Amino acid sequence: MNAEFINPFIKGLLNVMETMAQTTLKPGRPQRKSNEVAKGDVSGLIGMIGPETKGSLSITFDESLALTIMERMVGERPAKLDADVGDMVGEVTNMIAGSAKRDLADVGYDFGMATPVVVSGKDHTISHQVDGPKIILPFMCDEGSAHMEICFDK
Amino acid sequence: MNAEFINPFIKGLLNVMETMAQTTLKPGRPQRKSNEVAKGDVSGLIGMIGPETKGSLSITFDESLALTIMERMVGERPAKLDADVGDMVGEVTNMIAGSAKRDLADVGYDFGMATPVVVSGKDHTISHQVDGPKIILPFMCDEGSAHMEICFDK
Repeated sequence: MNAEFINPFIKGLLNVMETMAQTTLKPGRPQRKSNEVAKGDVSGLIGMIGPETKGSLSITFDESLALTIMERMVGERPAKLDADVGDMVGEVTNMIAGSAKRDLADVGYDFGMATPVVVSGKDHTISHQVDGPKIILPFMCDEGSAHMEICFDK
Repeated sequence: MNAEFINPFIKGLLNVMETMAQTTLKPGRPQRKSNEVAKGDVSGLIGMIGPETKGSLSITFDESLALTIMERMVGERPAKLDADVGDMVGEVTNMIAGSAKRDLADVGYDFGMATPVVVSGKDHTISHQVDGPKIILPFMCDEGSAHMEICFDK
């Protein structure tokens, strides 16, 4: 999996955060996940199926960042990770995958997207079950951190 | 979403549990999920995409049942929900979806499966972000409980 494939997802996340929540995330160093585990409090997951491969995308937020994003979008900070925050994370996941899907279609990679699923729970971990490489991308800002993972079967 | 569509997933789960772990699960009453939330300790999720719809499947186990399944499969009870238990849950998820996929293809419904994702974390909750109905199916046995959810966009 090369940068040509990963960059549209990074661009999608950064754009969605800027546009929807006026939040500038700073990308950290991408890692081939081995023992590295994305841990967080609320995650959006989405399955992807192309003609030649299949995979999954996850974006995991810590509580502080998720609440800040919600506050900037709706004008009020939720007291906790409630259903509205979950819906926002599901929508963000869908938008990131949709943005990457359009960009990758332009260069000849087509894939279909399943519906997003949102997981809530303090310090949960995500494990993508693929044969291929797992790429974990950390993102930081003053308000908290997020981890995006993009995994394909080959 | 009718019984014709749900039953292959139920059959898949019951068969996989019987075959792999000599465990007989007892299905509870299916519920249209509204405020009902599947809560558990380890979950497998998988995205599904058909020509006319898309959706997601999740199967959530409580810790006690997940450890018992693992014990019956490998002969030793893990001390906690480790990576091996996660891999087992991912494999079980893949097998349930694969079994339902074959059965539904036989009656004219085709869908593709993404790769499974496993979530671990005490008492996490799952929220499927679909427009259509959400069906939550409880399963019980002496060793613990599981919840399967099957959701499609229409």
